Order: sequence, then C-alpha cells, then structure tokens
Amino acid sequence: MQDCIFCKIVHGEIPSTKVYEDAMIMAFQDIQPQAPTHILVIPKKHLRSVMDLSVAYAELINRVFAAIRAVAKEQGVSETGFRLVTNTEADAGQVVHHLHFHVLGGAKLGQMA
Amino acid sequence: MQDCIFCKIVHGEIPSTKVYEDAMIMAFQDIQPQAPTHILVIPKKHLRSVMDLSVAYAELINRVFAAIRAVAKEQGVSETGFRLVTNTEADAGQVVHHLHFHVLGGAKLGQMA
Repeated sequence: MQDCIFCKIVHGEIPSTKVYEDAMIMAFQDIQPQAPTHILVIPKKHLRSVMDLSVAYAELINRVFAAIRAVAKEQGVSETGFRLVTNTEADAGQVVHHLHFHVLGGAKLGQMA
Repeated sequence: MQDCIFCKIVHGEIPSTKVYEDAMIMAFQDIQPQAPTHILVIPKKHLRSVMDLSVAYAELINRVFAAIRAVAKEQGVSETGFRLVTNTEADAGQVVHHLHFHVLGGAKLGQMA
C-alpha cells in the first residue's frame, strides 16, 4: 500500500529499530512506547486488521505467533509477563491500518481498556 | 486441568453465558466486563498462554482467530472496532492460567496498558 507507514517500514523507506525479521514478519520498537518493552509485530503483507486474517492466511498467523514468542523471549518478558494487543478500527483506536500486534511488558501493566 | 476454572467452564461444571462454540473453541461473556462488549475466546484444550502456542498448534491458533472474527461480527463490533488482548503471566495481570483472548468493544476504549 503506497501510503501505509508500516509498508514503508517493511521496505526500508522509513527507518525503524528492528528487533526481529523473517521472510513474512517484521518486529520493531514502537516510537511512542506505552511500557518499558513495547514492540510491534507485523506481517510484511498489507492486511488491514485481524478481520482480514481469513483461513487463507493460516501460515501467516502461525508465523506471527512464532515471531511474538521469539520477541517475548529476546526482550526478556516471556516469564515476567507481557500483554499482546491488536486494535481493530475506531473504537479500539487503530491508527495505522496495517495489522500489528503490540507486545507490552517490562513492568506491571495497568488496565487493558 | 483439575483446578482450572476455564476447563470447568468447557466441561459445563461451572455455568457461563456462551456466545460461540465449535469442536476446539469456546467463547463466553466475561463475568467482570471492562467494556460494553467483553467476550473471552478460549481453546478447549488447556494451554497456559501464548508461550505454549508452538507450531504443533497451527490448526488451533487458526481456529481461535476464525472464532474471534465470528464473535466480533456476531457482537456487532467488527466495523465499529474492538481490542483483542491476551495477557501472559504476572506483569500483564494474567489471573486464569488457561490461554484466553479478550474481545473488548462497544465503546471508545481507553489506553491498552
């Protein structure tokens, strides 16, 4: 998608602090962290939200979760704990319309909504 | 798991307000809702958290997401928006150690951590 900020990050047109990458997935630091650890895990393919994750994307969703587990371990939050969040559309405050999962941790977190 | 409250819900030993069920997945109302719509989507199989979702559970994770999409549509939040959250271990406030995804919506949500 031409005007998608996360597609531009995937293509290296906008810089990011990358923490994980494989053929289908990328993970990088959120630039406005809401916790000591705040990583965004995204599929490289442009999908709008979890509503787009039809059964056609079975492999992709598994790769996303493999990446989330790898990121949680690498960031040292897999045992202390972390929150995984994905926001869909306006009521949830989805700002970038490219599917992304927030990995939040590194401290006791507050309410989730 | 003998002492798991969500396993007991799956087996009908504890009542719940069910909104979705298939062979692998169940979804029911959260008894302490934090938003007008607050549904828990769980695999019937006892897994502790997303850290347990190894590649062996490829089908299960896809079924979880199919159920989440079905629940979001049925609850009328797929277009207005919803937040999907899963908490892992203490820092995230995981209370029940049976993997569960919160589907939160029906109003503008606040911060996610």
